[in-house]
Amino acid sequence: MTTHMHDQSIAVIILAAGKGTRMKSDLHKVLHPIAGRPMLHHLVASAATLHPARTVVVTGAGREQVERAVAPLGIATALQAEQLGTGHAVAQARAALAGFEGDVLILYGDVPLVTAATMQRMIDRLHGDDSPAAVVLGFRPADPGAYGRVIADAAGRIDRMVEYKDASDAERAETLCNSGLMAVHSRDLFALLARVGNDNAAGEYYLPDIVMLAAADGRASAVIETGEGEVAGVNSRGELAAVEAAWQATRRAAAMADGATLIAPDTVWFAHDTLLGRDVTIEPNVVFGPGVRVADGAVIHAFSHVEGAVIGEKADVGPFARLRPGADLGAGSRVGNFVEVKKATIGVGAKVNHLSYIGDAEIGARANIGAGTITCNYDGYFKYRTVVGEDAFIGSNSALVAPVTVGRGAIVAAGSVLTRDVDADALALVRPPQVDKPGWAARFREKMVARKAARR
Amino acid sequence: MTTHMHDQSIAVIILAAGKGTRMKSDLHKVLHPIAGRPMLHHLVASAATLHPARTVVVTGAGREQVERAVAPLGIATALQAEQLGTGHAVAQARAALAGFEGDVLILYGDVPLVTAATMQRMIDRLHGDDSPAAVVLGFRPADPGAYGRVIADAAGRIDRMVEYKDASDAERAETLCNSGLMAVHSRDLFALLARVGNDNAAGEYYLPDIVMLAAADGRASAVIETGEGEVAGVNSRGELAAVEAAWQATRRAAAMADGATLIAPDTVWFAHDTLLGRDVTIEPNVVFGPGVRVADGAVIHAFSHVEGAVIGEKADVGPFARLRPGADLGAGSRVGNFVEVKKATIGVGAKVNHLSYIGDAEIGARANIGAGTITCNYDGYFKYRTVVGEDAFIGSNSALVAPVTVGRGAIVAAGSVLTRDVDADALALVRPPQVDKPGWAARFREKMVARKAARR
Amino acid sequence: MTTHMHDQSIAVIILAAGKGTRMKSDLHKVLHPIAGRPMLHHLVASAATLHPARTVVVTGAGREQVERAVAPLGIATALQAEQLGTGHAVAQARAALAGFEGDVLILYGDVPLVTAATMQRMIDRLHGDDSPAAVVLGFRPADPGAYGRVIADAAGRIDRMVEYKDASDAERAETLCNSGLMAVHSRDLFALLARVGNDNAAGEYYLPDIVMLAAADGRASAVIETGEGEVAGVNSRGELAAVEAAWQATRRAAAMADGATLIAPDTVWFAHDTLLGRDVTIEPNVVFGPGVRVADGAVIHAFSHVEGAVIGEKADVGPFARLRPGADLGAGSRVGNFVEVKKATIGVGAKVNHLSYIGDAEIGARANIGAGTITCNYDGYFKYRTVVGEDAFIGSNSALVAPVTVGRGAIVAAGSVLTRDVDADALALVRPPQVDKPGWAARFREKMVARKAARR
Repeated sequence: MTTHMHDQSIAVIILAAGKGTRMKSDLHKVLHPIAGRPMLHHLVASAATLHPARTVVVTGAGREQVERAVAPLGIATALQAEQLGTGHAVAQARAALAGFEGDVLILYGDVPLVTAATMQRMIDRLHGDDSPAAVVLGFRPADPGAYGRVIADAAGRIDRMVEYKDASDAERAETLCNSGLMAVHSRDLFALLARVGNDNAAGEYYLPDIVMLAAADGRASAVIETGEGEVAGVNSRGELAAVEAAWQATRRAAAMADGATLIAPDTVWFAHDTLLGRDVTIEPNVVFGPGVRVADGAVIHAFSHVEGAVIGEKADVGPFARLRPGADLGAGSRVGNFVEVKKATIGVGAKVNHLSYIGDAEIGARANIGAGTITCNYDGYFKYRTVVGEDAFIGSNSALVAPVTVGRGAIVAAGSVLTRDVDADALALVRPPQVDKPGWAARFREKMVARKAARR
Repeated sequence: MTTHMHDQSIAVIILAAGKGTRMKSDLHKVLHPIAGRPMLHHLVASAATLHPARTVVVTGAGREQVERAVAPLGIATALQAEQLGTGHAVAQARAALAGFEGDVLILYGDVPLVTAATMQRMIDRLHGDDSPAAVVLGFRPADPGAYGRVIADAAGRIDRMVEYKDASDAERAETLCNSGLMAVHSRDLFALLARVGNDNAAGEYYLPDIVMLAAADGRASAVIETGEGEVAGVNSRGELAAVEAAWQATRRAAAMADGATLIAPDTVWFAHDTLLGRDVTIEPNVVFGPGVRVADGAVIHAFSHVEGAVIGEKADVGPFARLRPGADLGAGSRVGNFVEVKKATIGVGAKVNHLSYIGDAEIGARANIGAGTITCNYDGYFKYRTVVGEDAFIGSNSALVAPVTVGRGAIVAAGSVLTRDVDADALALVRPPQVDKPGWAARFREKMVARKAARR
Repeated sequence: MTTHMHDQSIAVIILAAGKGTRMKSDLHKVLHPIAGRPMLHHLVASAATLHPARTVVVTGAGREQVERAVAPLGIATALQAEQLGTGHAVAQARAALAGFEGDVLILYGDVPLVTAATMQRMIDRLHGDDSPAAVVLGFRPADPGAYGRVIADAAGRIDRMVEYKDASDAERAETLCNSGLMAVHSRDLFALLARVGNDNAAGEYYLPDIVMLAAADGRASAVIETGEGEVAGVNSRGELAAVEAAWQATRRAAAMADGATLIAPDTVWFAHDTLLGRDVTIEPNVVFGPGVRVADGAVIHAFSHVEGAVIGEKADVGPFARLRPGADLGAGSRVGNFVEVKKATIGVGAKVNHLSYIGDAEIGARANIGAGTITCNYDGYFKYRTVVGEDAFIGSNSALVAPVTVGRGAIVAAGSVLTRDVDADALALVRPPQVDKPGWAARFREKMVARKAARR
């Protein structure tokens, strides 16, 4: 995307006052996640690439949740106390934009997939040679159904906009529909909004009315088009899933175009910020949580769940691996099946192949962690670190009771519960003698078989 | 669905005599499961909502399997010893319906998705003002192909029904097809069936012929319509998978409409009786077996397999969790990765986070079960119980040899093999001393490297 | 497929000189796998059923990789040093075919799904009564787009072939397109290729030009048709995924037609050589690597990853099982959740139900391996075997330090680290005494709570 610079600065208003009743959720609609990030945050992130001077989220029902969610983003909120229509909602942002002069971009918290490129196109069009009063984002849905229609000429100059229920048959035959998104200069926006009335069945103030009011002043507005998928709205869990699926499809195609092999793309679920290197192979059924970086040539086998992790060059993960936040796998390292890694670095070429929990740990290069090894990092109150030196060998089924350090090249015998540090190159052995009782099993079997028979 | 009450009672005949050769299976076709329940049982369950006075399953090939499967349902079977057509099959149910007078609904064991609402509509239509002799369930397939056609007027009064091979071009151009399902009064059904002949290429007695026989008597029949999906038949494993997929799609949509978040609906597999609360979140790739109840606000992470389990409010399950029958998770409890729970209650707020097997156990509220903990519940002959008190802490990699009780607030040290009860607030420690052998690992390495070299 | 025998023998030329830039990969395009096997090997395997006398792979960019990959197949390569078009590429195979006389089949390394049946049809058509100079494989794509068109009569005799950019509107309206695959007699092929010029925009020698050259000699060529899916090409990772998906869809349908139940076919990923018995049930989300045989009546539960393994009759696998190469499961045996089996036989009726690693082992019939059992098969240098006798019982959380043998009917107590062999019918016990410290946990808790408070 080329960013065109204009004289004016930009403000963004995101409408998020709707209740979202059809979601049947205690969580506010705009906070439901897509790709592991709230819808609202997707919009804020996309808009941020336009470097807006101000961003205002208009809240209503469930305002506390929304305010809490946007607080860390350092953006303002404005309250729409009553649900009196989109025009009324935008008007509530006036105070928050006091002193601002420039382009205003109006977005919807439940229309999360609008791209930064489209937002920029809207702003650019507002600065077109024909100086439109407002820019409307239009789309041509497969089924135009009951959407409001935009009647415009070939250059996108709007003749009129009509609600479906007020439209004539000829108008209904038009396929260009209004997404609701607009760009308007702040000066025009609030002046026009002040003139919008609520003389309609619902008694609401409709934002699109400003287009006709400007036209009455002799100032035409313009429409630009985008694809239906980009302006898909979320009013139900079903639509949420559909938008998630659309996001994932786009992301998977991009991953493949960038040189990753996805054996079964439809079964790989990315997070909003997943980063993949070249010649990465991802087998079927891999789920990425947020915060993952995968270096070139790494392989992630089937049934892996990866979140907040760094996977080094040519590292080999899974199947059935779980990487949790803070997992940092060195180049050529291996984390195998039924292994969980959390806040731990796995050194270059080190191996944790089976059935282990490695938490709060540092595993040295080329170390070999046997099957069933557990770092006992928690005493119910505090967490402690385990350090395993380079080239060390931890025998299977060992418990490393942290804090504990195994020196480089040391060996811990299988089945050990390690509570003291082990020197480099030493062997540590924590094992009672084996006791054998000849014939015991045969006698036990006899007794049990008899008991079973007695119970019948 | 509104249930209309009529004077007559209802009987249901389910035809299940077909061999199902194309299934290439030793299991009878109608016993292949959809959503974890045999097809036949889906039909019986749907029909049961109409409170039928009698239900008869007509068996033939593989009758023993079918008889065994329906025995626990307390419904009758009738044998069709020879495969002489659908009319003949229905006639075999006569003895089983001796003394019954009322509406008879004729269903097919391999057409399992017909809803109770549609069955009720068929009965209601039979009591329509025009008193049809029979009611046929019709559908309009995307590709009518070789289905028999139903020629009817706008009110659904049937003029005639024709097999595709006997149909004229004009008749073939009709799109309303015969599903085979019918509703007929018992008095009419058996009288008409007695008059059906087998003067056709296959030498079979066709059930639909009763429509034309009644018409010859001056009594018209009626057709009502339903969607193609509802009357999809299963004659092959491919069709079985298609019907399963259709069932799952319907169920997923219902789950979302009821307020569950399914991040990737297509990857969640429900059982016929799965119950979900509100604001439940289900990540990609979750499989439900029968008998699961999930309370409000619970989260089931990716790659979880849940069967016969209760998941409490805001409990957190997976990824990679397996809950087996009898798992009962308290509110706010957590069962994490690579954990199997079977016949065990997990107390409110208790945690079993990693790599554990908890079977035949009772885990107290807020108890913390360390990674790699195993309840040793089986001695090869009998199963024994493990009880862990509230607030107890089980160190990692411990084996709890049942029967054994850990008192409330007690601690079991990591790596312990517990064979005796532990008092409340006590520490139990089962651990030999750690032995260190300085330099041993270095010498071992030297020896092994030499041996490897020698083998080359 | 019926193989028709002709007088001539067959040679196969596979073009694999293309760079595959759009793959953005360090791996040569034709070596990217479909169903766990390189695309090129799929073609070689399909062609092998025609028993070709010679097979030549024409290499170019990345030749070393391709040469290394085909070396074990015992087939020749020929270098196309410069990329001068498909005609030029085929001509490079001349030396490798010196002395060969017969039919030449020209395939493309990045068009991997062409079946042996289609290859045979091409050869058969070459021997048709009308003795065509060459046989072209055509297809009718849903969107013919910019493909070259084949203008032919109803009998498939080609009038002319035109590149899209040179085609008239009438020619573009034709829907039969050229796949590029051809069959030509060796005598004609190289004679015609010698006459192909490069007087075109790209300065390349085009293989299809031989059709027009033969026509100028009065010898018509013929076209036979196949489906679009079979000639799908792979130029990007997205197309690779699409071809993989097409292959899988075909394989799944075949598995179901042969009598396997796939509850969710779209979630089962087969390898090129997976063999399934009758009445096998495969739950959702199962991934097969190469080399798997599954016997009649076996059940593979959800989330299983199976590679190089034999699964015996009525064996029960998963969920969450990982079978690695050399796993050999006896009839009626069971490998349950979070279990990894590698190079190990599991005897008839034996059970490894939970959280275990069984590697380099032999588990006897009816033996029961407790949860959390680990075979310690590796000392960092060598691998050792574990043998467990029939009817033996290994208590949970045991480590079997190989080499070690547990006799038949013996019992190993839970939590044991076994380092010596155990006699048949004996009990082996490796366990220190349990020490209890009354009140210790309460004092610890007090101290920790105080320390936590102090840190705040």
